[in-house]
Amino acid sequence: MMSTTQEQPVLRGGIDLGGTKIEAIVVDAANQVLGSARHPTPTSGGPADVAAEMAATMKEAAAGAGTSTAALRGVGVGSPGSVDAAAGTISSAGNLPGWEGSYALAAELGKLLETRVAVGNDVQVAIGAEYALGPAKRYNSLIGVFWGTGVGGGLILDRKPWRGRGGAGEIGHMVIHVGGRHCPCGNEGCVEAYAGRAAMEAHARHEMEQGRKSHLLKLMEEKQRVRFTSAVWAAAVDRGDELAIELIDGAVAALGAGAASAVNLLDVEAVLIGGGLGVRFGEEYVKRIREAMEKHLFRGHTMPDVQLVSLGDLGGALGAALLVVD
Amino acid sequence: MMSTTQEQPVLRGGIDLGGTKIEAIVVDAANQVLGSARHPTPTSGGPADVAAEMAATMKEAAAGAGTSTAALRGVGVGSPGSVDAAAGTISSAGNLPGWEGSYALAAELGKLLETRVAVGNDVQVAIGAEYALGPAKRYNSLIGVFWGTGVGGGLILDRKPWRGRGGAGEIGHMVIHVGGRHCPCGNEGCVEAYAGRAAMEAHARHEMEQGRKSHLLKLMEEKQRVRFTSAVWAAAVDRGDELAIELIDGAVAALGAGAASAVNLLDVEAVLIGGGLGVRFGEEYVKRIREAMEKHLFRGHTMPDVQLVSLGDLGGALGAALLVVD
Repeated sequence: MMSTTQEQPVLRGGIDLGGTKIEAIVVDAANQVLGSARHPTPTSGGPADVAAEMAATMKEAAAGAGTSTAALRGVGVGSPGSVDAAAGTISSAGNLPGWEGSYALAAELGKLLETRVAVGNDVQVAIGAEYALGPAKRYNSLIGVFWGTGVGGGLILDRKPWRGRGGAGEIGHMVIHVGGRHCPCGNEGCVEAYAGRAAMEAHARHEMEQGRKSHLLKLMEEKQRVRFTSAVWAAAVDRGDELAIELIDGAVAALGAGAASAVNLLDVEAVLIGGGLGVRFGEEYVKRIREAMEKHLFRGHTMPDVQLVSLGDLGGALGAALLVVD
Repeated sequence: MMSTTQEQPVLRGGIDLGGTKIEAIVVDAANQVLGSARHPTPTSGGPADVAAEMAATMKEAAAGAGTSTAALRGVGVGSPGSVDAAAGTISSAGNLPGWEGSYALAAELGKLLETRVAVGNDVQVAIGAEYALGPAKRYNSLIGVFWGTGVGGGLILDRKPWRGRGGAGEIGHMVIHVGGRHCPCGNEGCVEAYAGRAAMEAHARHEMEQGRKSHLLKLMEEKQRVRFTSAVWAAAVDRGDELAIELIDGAVAALGAGAASAVNLLDVEAVLIGGGLGVRFGEEYVKRIREAMEKHLFRGHTMPDVQLVSLGDLGGALGAALLVVD
């Protein structure tokens, strides 16, 4: 039976743009995933090359859902870097090739996909998805801590996202060691300097250059990677690699101190742990982060619920699709 | 000419209950101070003795305003410790004598003053006064950092106080040195462990016991005090006392790191510096705290305005009087 135009389901696209991979999905009105695709993020070129790869990934996801990108109601993008949602631009996306300046991603990607494109901050978008679609919706206030290449964060206060003057949520750049380790952001002693995957890799490589023994490089080669991915760290810890265990323990302590500081300041009901490393290490490490928080929780405060994100790796793309509104 | 009962001005009382002094004022509907009194806080006894001293101070302020406490619309109290505003109780006020448990301050003080008494958290009350009566009212969001015996704080987000589950604002217990100095709260590495007057005094006395030279004790005796008050610290710094300068420099660094962490997380428009030491050290130190913040501010964030409280020592009592509502 032929369906009329009115009966066509309203489909939306969502793209999670990460430093390592581009994840694209097509969802229906109930946020069920009808098609998905994953491509590696280009490691050279510039924003236009990244946009072209995003378009290819999204078209593949649309084909998988039996549609075309032109037929989508729109496509949302969760992006790293500094996002101007109103202008549709992304700037200073340091983990993406040649993306130091500003790029009109919404406009350019819109042309390639022949539909409207909305952009948002990757972590805020993922936390939005957890809050809209996951069990976290029962809380009035929460902090999201996304443990990955960097350490991102986002806040829900009084059931609404809190963005401050646009840049709120940088839990990875709360200071836990004045005068401490150098952070990729340029400052010293941030949570991310101890817990971010990129910072941990830089520190581990430095230690190995100084003669410290570790299986990290060998595991990276075995997995045919060029970076210490979450899987590489997890494998090293599983094998009892001393350097990896030391750095991951330090990351847990840093995340616990940062999350507890945020809770002492905001007294929220819940802390959600996500991100590549967060999802890879899972419940056992959520428990460890909770224990690290307890040491620093202000007496008299009640420990908030500390939970793993519920949407896993797809949270970012699902949240991006939620950016498409009528 | 006699005025009728209807023409009597509506007066309110406000009491700022501190670890060192009790400040009481009577204000009119325009928050003009008509009478005030200040007594030392009892250093022995228990909550009932403190309440009796509060009543005596308030009665003196009322007499100064040409009225009696029974004629006041009500009296508000800004108190340290854990405040249950609805129940009118204060518990765990560690800086007050024998006040480890819970005490029904509103009820007991109400009997002594023959008027209604409302209680609130001392720092939140002072920040409320700055926000209601000071130039800070132009901001949509701010963090108050009160540098005194401890380091207290409070938040205004979206033009409303943010209290979380009741305990928000503990900027003094954000962690700036994992594994760092012992804090009076029982944890390690908090801002207050480096910047709180009580923690600095404990640290200074310990250093002196180890043979470190300092004028702090002599200055304390000259000023006939039993503690290193704000005036003692200020005098020691003025004299170039090495230990005092080292500790105050450490306090500035700690306050800067804590405030920057809070700003990185919340991206508020302003940071207000208050408290006994904040008011005593004044604008020059507000500038120094701002500089200490700059080192830790996340790149891409705009520096918030950093300002001294405008109501000075009276902010706490004025804010307490604002607790009296019809």
